[in-house]
Formats: sequence, C-alpha cells, structure tokens
Amino acid sequence: MENKGKHISEQFDNELESVRNAVLSMGGMVEKQLTDALLAIESNDNELADAVLSNDKKINSLEMDIDGACTRIIAKRQPTASDLRLIVATLKTIADLERIGDEVKRLARVAKESFSSDQKHLLVSLENLGQLVIQMLRQALDAFARMDGEAALEVHKSDGNIDRQYEAMMRQLMTYMMEDPRSIPKIMDVVWSARSLERIGDRCQNISEYIIYNVYGKDVRHTSTESMENTVQRKR
Amino acid sequence: MENKGKHISEQFDNELESVRNAVLSMGGMVEKQLTDALLAIESNDNELADAVLSNDKKINSLEMDIDGACTRIIAKRQPTASDLRLIVATLKTIADLERIGDEVKRLARVAKESFSSDQKHLLVSLENLGQLVIQMLRQALDAFARMDGEAALEVHKSDGNIDRQYEAMMRQLMTYMMEDPRSIPKIMDVVWSARSLERIGDRCQNISEYIIYNVYGKDVRHTSTESMENTVQRKR
Repeated sequence: MENKGKHISEQFDNELESVRNAVLSMGGMVEKQLTDALLAIESNDNELADAVLSNDKKINSLEMDIDGACTRIIAKRQPTASDLRLIVATLKTIADLERIGDEVKRLARVAKESFSSDQKHLLVSLENLGQLVIQMLRQALDAFARMDGEAALEVHKSDGNIDRQYEAMMRQLMTYMMEDPRSIPKIMDVVWSARSLERIGDRCQNISEYIIYNVYGKDVRHTSTESMENTVQRKR
Repeated sequence: MENKGKHISEQFDNELESVRNAVLSMGGMVEKQLTDALLAIESNDNELADAVLSNDKKINSLEMDIDGACTRIIAKRQPTASDLRLIVATLKTIADLERIGDEVKRLARVAKESFSSDQKHLLVSLENLGQLVIQMLRQALDAFARMDGEAALEVHKSDGNIDRQYEAMMRQLMTYMMEDPRSIPKIMDVVWSARSLERIGDRCQNISEYIIYNVYGKDVRHTSTESMENTVQRKR
C-alpha cells in the first residue's frame, strides 16, 4: 500500500495492512460468488446455487468487521490526509462489495429455476454479459489492490460496453416476450439477472471512483470521463 | 442533535449542526423530487419530469459537499465515540439519499412516456406503491432529524408492507403482459418504476439502520428484526 512504512507507529502500519488484506479477501470472495452463481445458472446446479446463497452471510459479516476496524482506526489513530482518504475509500468500497454480494444472491436464486431446452437460448447472452462483468470486477479489485488510478479509470470506462450489451439484451428479451407470452415469467427471471449484472458494473464504477479519490485526492463522482482523464493525467 | 453543547469547542458544535442541517435539506430535496416524479407520472407532466431530471445534479453536489465536510471534520476534530458514530452514520445516510435520487430519476424518465387511455390503469397501483414509499422516506428523514431509534425501528419494519405490495404488483403486471403482449414495452416501464420504488424502500431501511447504529452504538445490519427490537428496547 502506498502509505506503507510512512508511520512512526509500526502498529498503525500493521492495522492498515490488515484492513487492506481483509478488503482483498472480501473482494476475492465476492468474485468467486459471482463466478459460481453464473456457473450455477449455466449448468442449472442447485447445490452450487445454494452454496452461493449461504456464503453471502460471510461477505456480510466481513463487511461489518472491516467497517468496525476502519472506525476504530479513525478513533484511535486520528488519521489525516492520505491515511484518512484511504480509510474513507475503504469504507465505501466494502459497502459496494457487499451490495454486489446481494446482486449475486439474486443471480443464484435464478440458477435454481429450471429452463426448458427451448428456453436455454435465453441464458446465452446472460452468460456473455456475465463474463464481461466478472472481468470488470476482477480489474476493479486489481486496481484497488495496487491502488492504481490509471487502471481504475480504465475500469470506469469499460462500463459503457456493459451498458450497451445490457440494452441490446433487454431489447432482445422484450421481443421474445412478445413472441412467446407463455415464457414471460422465465424471461423475467433473465431480465432481473441481466439487471443485477448491469448494477454490478455500476458498483465497479463506484469502486474505481473511490480509488481515484484515494490516489489523487479528488472526488470525481458525477464528473465527465474527460474530467476524470484530466485528473489522472495531470498527476501522471 | 444529541451531542449539542457537549464540546468545549463551540466551533465544533457549529460544524456538526451545519452538517446536520445540510443532511436535512438534502433529505427534503430528495423527498420533493420523489413526490414530483410521482406527480409527473400521474399527470403525464413532461415539464415537471424534466425539472426532476435536472434537479438531481443539486442532490449530487450536495452529497459531495456534505461528504467533504464530514471528512474535514474527522481530520480536524478527530472525533471519537458518539461524535464519530454520528459522522459515519451521516456519511452512509447521504450515500443512500443520493442513490434514492438516482432511482427517482428513473421514475421521472417513465413520466415522459405517454400511456394510452386503456394503459392508464397500469399506473394506479404504481401510485399506491409510491404513496407508501413517500411516507416511508418521510418517516426515515424524521427519525434522522430527531435521531430517534424507536422511530427508525418502525421505519425498518414498514418495508415488509412495501415488499408485499411490490410482489403483488409484479404478479399483476406479469399477467397483463401475458394477456396483452403488444403492451409489453409500456408494462416494462411500469415494472422498472415499481422496482425503483421498492429499492427506495430498501434504502430507507438502510438509513434506519444507520440511525440505530448512531443512537445505540450497535451495527444492526444483517440482523433479525427481533435482535433489532432487543437493541432498541434494552436502551429504552
């Protein structure tokens, strides 16, 4: 972590390092949950879906642990400047990771539904979208691990592609519903799953904004991509 | 504010009071946005919908202002215990208020769609759900203003009713889609709007959890209603 070795108190460094490791392990769990949920949908694997559903509790309790650890660090170490930014960015990142976990739970519930052989085609574009989102989440977590602002900017920009795929998929699903009204309940399951994936992309975007905030000291939420690029380039 | 008058530094009290006022004013803006968006849907009022869409920027920038003010207070005042809890609860509350603003924007976009006279009936249950959600948001903001843990618990419980109404509405909308496939695109607009309202209810639940955390010093997220009741009753 960029702050490492800076503090007179070695104990403070250890605390920050331990929070960092906890966030990375939480991120790894969330990524695995997403991968498993998509695999469970693809293979209609009930057992795997149940495992995903029950694992979500671990993510929730990890979030609460890290949250508590960050608050204790603020109270005890009274961090300022870049240390404080790091803690604030961490608090926000884990909140988004926890919400990604909730979206994954929604996907796992759909994995428990069974699709007839002529409904299986509905799942193909869901899997494609899922792969894009897994990749985005992985890159967001990598950028967090390295506190890499440039990588975070790339993550942020990649959401545009996910949004386009999502929109195309929605149009396609709406057409299927009109063509085969009896399949509407099943198609709606796919609609909700696609929506969850799209929301996970939005949350990865949030995480990349927190990374940029931490690295450059600038809150870039609600700003244009151009302004974000300026922030990142100026400090290059 | 419960902390008022406690600090040796009058300036610190002023800073906390000013953050509190900013949160209440942000809450009031979000509540008005929601009311206006629902009114715009009901009366198919394009102008009002546009006003809601453009006002969202004010909410975003208010969130960033309050966020910055909270971080500066942490850095400058190094709050501990209840002061720190209040700042953390505030940071989380404004994040949820901002996201409620985003859901309201989605509602405003639907208000710009036109529904034919035989599609108008779709909007009736949306309005009913909307009234429940406005009430819940108002009560959550009241509980925040008074930092009233018992009121927050009531807000938390009231989400069950919203979820039931939402589920019933989804079943009804799915039936409409099957009966009249040509209306599917319009019905999907209503589906997304109902979903946004349901999500606003979830965010009001989050806010009530932050209030309970601030008042009782206990993180009650992911716990049962019973456990929350115990937390609130024990301290009565």
